[in-house]
Amino acid sequence: MEIAEIGEFGLIRHLTENIELKNPETKRGAGDDCAVMAFEPGRQVLVTTDLLMEGVHFDLQYMPLKHLGYKSAMVNLSDIYAMNGRPRQMTVSLALSKRFAVEDLETFYEGLRLACDAHGCDIVGGDTSASLTGLAISITCIGDARPEDVVYRDGAKDTDLICVTGDLGAAYMGLQLLEREKTIYNSQVKSDSAKSEKQNAELDFQPDFAGKEYLLERQLKPEARKDIIEALAQAGIRPTAMIDISDGLSSELFHICTQSHAGCRIYEERIPLDYQTAVMAEELNMNVVTCALNGGEDYELLFTVPLTEHDRVAAIPGVKVIGHMTKPELGLQLVCRDGVEMQLKAQGWRAI
Amino acid sequence: MEIAEIGEFGLIRHLTENIELKNPETKRGAGDDCAVMAFEPGRQVLVTTDLLMEGVHFDLQYMPLKHLGYKSAMVNLSDIYAMNGRPRQMTVSLALSKRFAVEDLETFYEGLRLACDAHGCDIVGGDTSASLTGLAISITCIGDARPEDVVYRDGAKDTDLICVTGDLGAAYMGLQLLEREKTIYNSQVKSDSAKSEKQNAELDFQPDFAGKEYLLERQLKPEARKDIIEALAQAGIRPTAMIDISDGLSSELFHICTQSHAGCRIYEERIPLDYQTAVMAEELNMNVVTCALNGGEDYELLFTVPLTEHDRVAAIPGVKVIGHMTKPELGLQLVCRDGVEMQLKAQGWRAI
Repeated sequence: MEIAEIGEFGLIRHLTENIELKNPETKRGAGDDCAVMAFEPGRQVLVTTDLLMEGVHFDLQYMPLKHLGYKSAMVNLSDIYAMNGRPRQMTVSLALSKRFAVEDLETFYEGLRLACDAHGCDIVGGDTSASLTGLAISITCIGDARPEDVVYRDGAKDTDLICVTGDLGAAYMGLQLLEREKTIYNSQVKSDSAKSEKQNAELDFQPDFAGKEYLLERQLKPEARKDIIEALAQAGIRPTAMIDISDGLSSELFHICTQSHAGCRIYEERIPLDYQTAVMAEELNMNVVTCALNGGEDYELLFTVPLTEHDRVAAIPGVKVIGHMTKPELGLQLVCRDGVEMQLKAQGWRAI
Repeated sequence: MEIAEIGEFGLIRHLTENIELKNPETKRGAGDDCAVMAFEPGRQVLVTTDLLMEGVHFDLQYMPLKHLGYKSAMVNLSDIYAMNGRPRQMTVSLALSKRFAVEDLETFYEGLRLACDAHGCDIVGGDTSASLTGLAISITCIGDARPEDVVYRDGAKDTDLICVTGDLGAAYMGLQLLEREKTIYNSQVKSDSAKSEKQNAELDFQPDFAGKEYLLERQLKPEARKDIIEALAQAGIRPTAMIDISDGLSSELFHICTQSHAGCRIYEERIPLDYQTAVMAEELNMNVVTCALNGGEDYELLFTVPLTEHDRVAAIPGVKVIGHMTKPELGLQLVCRDGVEMQLKAQGWRAI
């Protein structure tokens, strides 16, 4: 069905009408000038927002719309967890070019709702408008936390332990894999330009993803670490600083060190890597540690805890201690396997 | 200065570093994963978001970046007032194509800050990324209100009076005026294509805006009606339903009637129009009432009050009673000057 058939107001109503509001804090969802919330007494309110642009942040040639909806929600949920908060509400604005049908938006919303349902987050506002070119997705996520629980980037003390969750670099390797297969596919399509579009669509192209499913999953379906926030709370551990890894470990360490006025020392051998990440890096002739440091899109958590918490934090499944904070004058150091120390650079991940 | 010279993190820091946080409710602004707020006990939190796309919502050929920043903020502030709330915080995400320089962003932020300062709103988060094509602006505004003060669209009762603020249709006429002068300018540039770009830039083109300054102002520099919200509070009047006029009076009446399960009857002769709006409509051979009903971008308030409030609401400067609510089966009626009744259609304003 074409969007013009039901119109802008019709589309919004269609996408949001059967959304159930589950949080008692959500007083009014989509359908008014604002969403309205009433938080429990004494709670602080957390707000994060992300603007995702087609061709820069995602490529619809290999990113299914359902996954895109899921991932768009996850990157915002991850920011709430990175403050040690609970996500509560989300608003979603889409700017659409003419090529999208109502069914496409339904698919996008399916992914979005799957992510929100898993994290107890209400979708409280929607907006769609036209875009002359690509798809633009703007999501704002609202969360809450007790004031004493909120964790900023600036609380790390020297001697604090540096911890990361999960493993790093896999999402970046997944991206490389998808880009490689896209290039091969496009070259096959081009090489026989005499074929009709229909024939091209039926091209018997089998992308080679065997044994690399984990990399794809990390790129297409990242998971915000609600489980870690819950495990930390259960263990009674409040991190001194925390950030989620969206631009790469180096870049995030740089933020924590700058804002905490501290330095850090991490150990190459302790950086968590998956086997598939290492294999793929080898195939592409890339340094796997560089990928883990600068790849980005891991949506894992990087946090610091007092030295005294070592045993308790190391006992949490999925958490790894990779180094410790230092005095600021020591800078950001990576201790390599051979004992050589290198200065970390905050390259971040350039989507540009 | 090119944005690449200071990088993404540098740009954000540069744009947000000297922003003073003025609300005691704002605990943490830009620079972490989330902004953090602590509202007064018992307050409800209001959230609204808007995604503005170049070529669809604005045209940089005649929209100066400072005005664009100002207007982008205003359209969001207006949504908070439409709930009878006070704006408190704002986050701003920009997706930029390569043609923008750091100075352009500074100009945009100047306008943004001017609007926020005038309305006591803190800028608490910023994000910039690349865009392959045009400029995209995503703004989220957060406000608060006492629960008993929040006004929705669904509270209008039949016999309630319908009020609008200011005058309508001028912003739409301003848009027509700008589009007309743009067409003339572009045809002059084209007609002498032998000229160099530099010569074209120096083209002695004088757009004809004389006597139409008000229309330009309404299009380029709309003002959210904080004054009306304050006047209503001072008079002790709580509207039964309220909405801001962004898509045109007809469309907003349609929202109020649908959500309040009511009909309405408004009087053509009571729709507030400025003299310049009427003159411009005459020049363009358009019906001025149609412009007022369907033009949009007025950012005035449309609200309903109980019949008993007539004298007190009519005494507020800038407020005009234009009709009253009716039973739902009577539909949405416009009573024309000649007494003929016409059914209103919610066309909205198609930016597309």
